[in-house]
Amino acid sequence: MDLAITDTLAFTMADDRLGILEDATVAIDDGELAYVGPASEFDGEADRTIDGAGRVTMPGLVNVHVHSGLTLVRGGAQDVPEIEWMNRALGPLSESMTPADHVAGARLGVLEALRSGVTTVGEYAADVARLVEAVYDPMGLRVVATETINAVGESKADLGPDDPYPLEAEAGWRGLERNEALFETYAAHDRVSALYGPQALDMVPRALLEEIRDRAETHDRGVHMHVAQGDRERRQIEARYGAGKTTVSVLEELDLVSERLLAAHLHGATAAERERLATAGVRMAACPSSIAAIDGIVPPLVGFREHGGVVGIGTDQAPGPGGHDFLRELRTAALLAKVDRTDPTAFPAWDALRVGTIEGARALGIADRVGSLEEGKRADVIVLDLEQPSTAPTVAEPLHTAVANLVYGATAGLVETAIVDGEVVLEDGVATTVDEGAILEEANERAEQLFVEAGPRWREAESELVERVDSGWL
Amino acid sequence: MDLAITDTLAFTMADDRLGILEDATVAIDDGELAYVGPASEFDGEADRTIDGAGRVTMPGLVNVHVHSGLTLVRGGAQDVPEIEWMNRALGPLSESMTPADHVAGARLGVLEALRSGVTTVGEYAADVARLVEAVYDPMGLRVVATETINAVGESKADLGPDDPYPLEAEAGWRGLERNEALFETYAAHDRVSALYGPQALDMVPRALLEEIRDRAETHDRGVHMHVAQGDRERRQIEARYGAGKTTVSVLEELDLVSERLLAAHLHGATAAERERLATAGVRMAACPSSIAAIDGIVPPLVGFREHGGVVGIGTDQAPGPGGHDFLRELRTAALLAKVDRTDPTAFPAWDALRVGTIEGARALGIADRVGSLEEGKRADVIVLDLEQPSTAPTVAEPLHTAVANLVYGATAGLVETAIVDGEVVLEDGVATTVDEGAILEEANERAEQLFVEAGPRWREAESELVERVDSGWL
Repeated sequence: MDLAITDTLAFTMADDRLGILEDATVAIDDGELAYVGPASEFDGEADRTIDGAGRVTMPGLVNVHVHSGLTLVRGGAQDVPEIEWMNRALGPLSESMTPADHVAGARLGVLEALRSGVTTVGEYAADVARLVEAVYDPMGLRVVATETINAVGESKADLGPDDPYPLEAEAGWRGLERNEALFETYAAHDRVSALYGPQALDMVPRALLEEIRDRAETHDRGVHMHVAQGDRERRQIEARYGAGKTTVSVLEELDLVSERLLAAHLHGATAAERERLATAGVRMAACPSSIAAIDGIVPPLVGFREHGGVVGIGTDQAPGPGGHDFLRELRTAALLAKVDRTDPTAFPAWDALRVGTIEGARALGIADRVGSLEEGKRADVIVLDLEQPSTAPTVAEPLHTAVANLVYGATAGLVETAIVDGEVVLEDGVATTVDEGAILEEANERAEQLFVEAGPRWREAESELVERVDSGWL
Repeated sequence: MDLAITDTLAFTMADDRLGILEDATVAIDDGELAYVGPASEFDGEADRTIDGAGRVTMPGLVNVHVHSGLTLVRGGAQDVPEIEWMNRALGPLSESMTPADHVAGARLGVLEALRSGVTTVGEYAADVARLVEAVYDPMGLRVVATETINAVGESKADLGPDDPYPLEAEAGWRGLERNEALFETYAAHDRVSALYGPQALDMVPRALLEEIRDRAETHDRGVHMHVAQGDRERRQIEARYGAGKTTVSVLEELDLVSERLLAAHLHGATAAERERLATAGVRMAACPSSIAAIDGIVPPLVGFREHGGVVGIGTDQAPGPGGHDFLRELRTAALLAKVDRTDPTAFPAWDALRVGTIEGARALGIADRVGSLEEGKRADVIVLDLEQPSTAPTVAEPLHTAVANLVYGATAGLVETAIVDGEVVLEDGVATTVDEGAILEEANERAEQLFVEAGPRWREAESELVERVDSGWL
């Protein structure tokens, strides 16, 4: 055996519950989970041992929907009306970003995610292969990469909300070409897989969507798409497809509603539409902090799960929600669900732990390989020290306080060890594969330059934040 | 000068905005803020210098409503129906706690708060002097201590919801005696002050409330009370004071509605009642995580502030909401406010920073001494390093990203230094006045014993959590 974590409290997620094992050993050989069970029955010898006493060992967390490059402009766009967020607050900053800026932002955001226990990220970006190559692969994380396919041109500032965006079909087809190259490049990679990424129904021409659908079918691949993001999209769909049409009804007509589809957000769909999607096997990516911060809305993840749908959680992008601490995100998801339903039992801690691991892996279509601690699966494992001021005490009788304290008390900083595909990528809470200081330094230098350069455009866009700066609030 | 923090980005809260100062020096002499201004104009010499470059310096955070002793049973009561939380989930555990358990829990909870930048706690407990003496004073924090005055007897399990609790007036008067002793003991203490603590209108006899009101008036003291906590209280008030009576209407009749009153929660009051309270100068203690976790409700703090009311934020108790990380609580408050109003501009980061400092100090009646960085005030100061994966980058142009990143990105761990009344009580993120390891060890040992001892009662109380344990979820 290469590695054994001994005498630990394990949450394996292996039994459709939490799979709670006390005094367990988790052993890894050749990147695979070779033993998960009672320490007393483990008779292997490991080259390296991690003392799991007083610690929780569980599957690495799965953050299903992330635009990590935008971490570089964290703090630049929040507390503005939804209608301003994209075009007047974030836009003037993000449009000034170079490819190298996106890489620097992704390094920062993925480091933050890793330090909070994330071992798999569902990354969604234009030219996502660049991020895979420059960030995920060297950092050693698992990534499900989605290439953005988007045909909306630059200049839509002059359009009214009911004028359909002009679509540049060629730009969309070039996106599909990049997406195909992504599948080919990483076909045999241990830690990298891919999904098709049509950005949203209002941003991709119909013929291109049909082509993506056919290719997904032919090659048995998944499709990751923003679906029913709200009022702006609703008006675009009616303008493009006709009165009474909705994103979900058009997706149904196009035969895109199936188990292949991972749908992000869904708050703009009706409850009946979400039920139809869940019943059809569509998976949901819910981004609680992001949608709360940008739209003032709670993602409808509880209802989707009640209809039998599979849900994963994502931290989306840093501007607005603030970042990629996935443990904090589980807590946020639980509290937001409770107030959304006026029900303190909504989305309890045990559900949050499953959604953050095995259900997230199902959402990304990789649950056969990761998401639970089961012999034969790839070894994506984290070890947390809950004997800290924010999460102690840990008792095992009459209930395991670690379940609630992990979700309601833990944030990044409690994760001591993270292992991806058998390799230790975080040790004593610090990334082993990259220079954390260099990542921070590069991000700061690039951000300072970017914000200064984008400053005049940002002022001209006249979001509410400009007046806040001028009056001493920001 | 004793101490100077140099070349720092300061948020002073001194100008009814954030009081943003770049390249500032904050200097302390004899426990007092001796200089707050441009580094270039500072000509003092300090015995000790803290390099504030790349860091944010601001007033220590003010956590206005905390029952810290219950931190010992963190993880024991959450994700249950509101009607079960107090009597069937938390009760069997908390009723088994000894005074020494409360002290151990308070040490843990206050340590957690301190590490998140809290320098003042509004502690609310029975026999609160014990916690002041054993926890707050040795740890060096500022505390506004409220003694619980409660006349409700033990055995109310057999009562229907509309049967008024039997009140044991003597128990209430003994509480008032302890409260008076608290005022006397700490009359001249630099860091300890006191408030009257009638628990709630349904739990204290009328004559005792009138006595508290008169004494508060005579001695110019404040009253800290749980007000309008929800349906259970509403029914008790009608049973005790008559149909149509509400907590607020009775408080008005009793002449308890005034600037002396700090009212916790208020979600059971009507919007019109809250407007009357705010207009009358009543201050509000809002506990977002707690009320979300226990009731599935968002505290109505945005509306209270719109009516001109002063609001402070509290973390209440650990079981349910999870703990006392006050930076995380500011974020939670902001996100919950946004979804409560379906408005991403509700409770923006800049408001959260003021509510967490100067407004919290106003809520506790100590804003003349702390809550902002102004020369002549007592020196309660924190220094945070935002150049971390969860909060970088910090830029100053065209807006200060530190404002949003502090609120939406920061949790405990970023606070490097905390100073209370001029004394450094947290250095490099570690408490200087106590042995953190010993606090964790004692809490864990006591909790293990307590949970085991309380186990049979906890099972007999048959909350939903019992079944969850038995089926592998907890």
